[in-house]
Amino acid sequence: MRPIVVRSLVVAAITLAAACGAGASEANNPQDIAAVNTLRTAFMTAFNSGDAAGVGQAYTADAIEAGNHTPSLSGRDAIVASHKQMFEQMTAKIVLTPEETKTMGSSGYDRGTFKFTMTPKAGGAAINDEGRYLVLLEKGTDGSWHVARDIDNSTLPLPAPPAPMPEKKKGK
Amino acid sequence: MRPIVVRSLVVAAITLAAACGAGASEANNPQDIAAVNTLRTAFMTAFNSGDAAGVGQAYTADAIEAGNHTPSLSGRDAIVASHKQMFEQMTAKIVLTPEETKTMGSSGYDRGTFKFTMTPKAGGAAINDEGRYLVLLEKGTDGSWHVARDIDNSTLPLPAPPAPMPEKKKGK
Repeated sequence: MRPIVVRSLVVAAITLAAACGAGASEANNPQDIAAVNTLRTAFMTAFNSGDAAGVGQAYTADAIEAGNHTPSLSGRDAIVASHKQMFEQMTAKIVLTPEETKTMGSSGYDRGTFKFTMTPKAGGAAINDEGRYLVLLEKGTDGSWHVARDIDNSTLPLPAPPAPMPEKKKGK
Repeated sequence: MRPIVVRSLVVAAITLAAACGAGASEANNPQDIAAVNTLRTAFMTAFNSGDAAGVGQAYTADAIEAGNHTPSLSGRDAIVASHKQMFEQMTAKIVLTPEETKTMGSSGYDRGTFKFTMTPKAGGAAINDEGRYLVLLEKGTDGSWHVARDIDNSTLPLPAPPAPMPEKKKGK
């Protein structure tokens, strides 16, 4: 074997190891976890400032947000429009508390709990909710992380539907 | 270089390539996708038969199920116990319709919609729900897939809390 062949094999092995290590198989890289933490904080800051465009920046262009008791929103534009409408009518505040954040290469997820309050700007009672969220994350080619899939639900009991009026009360 | 060194390098490169390909970076392997489809069907069959232990077999031992408007269930035993209690009181039927199933090495997710009906065995009105689910999946060392994290929510509007009785009706 000529030295150049050996050198090529060494280079190939090192390149392969680097590609494998830096790619899909590298789990919980501290830089990635830090970037996801930054993303979560940026989302909260935008949300709690009533900044719909800023909220949209947390998501991929083709993200799907499945909000509880509402139709799914497909795409960043729909997510921004929905938040814009909400922020026009409501002062909304959210706190996300992560319980599990994992990345593997260019994908990952973040899971935790939320507390949410929404107060009508026109006055009236605040609406409170608390529960859990799970988001699927994607790392872009520029190294930034975004939310690609978003679902949440509530730990509060489902309100009972209005009971029919008891017979003795009817018409009185 | 001695031939044995070259041979070692070739073996190292091939081993690395195989480990990389068969490991975390292999996305959407058809066998893995098929196994997840089988898992989903097995879950529905167990659920719709009222088989709590069978439902539990769909989950990892340390799975977390976050059912809408209920506390989280941690671990297969808690998931089985909760389903056992439900199936004792209710005839429950679920249909899952996947919209997106992805695997990468030993992890993955399945996302889609559900329709759910629960009829009290003691009589009374059925409870219907429909919405979306997102589960995170894990592949065991034996090649089998299980649900590790489970969250769902509803596309139906949240029932309004019971309205206070109008003033003119009070005490009449």
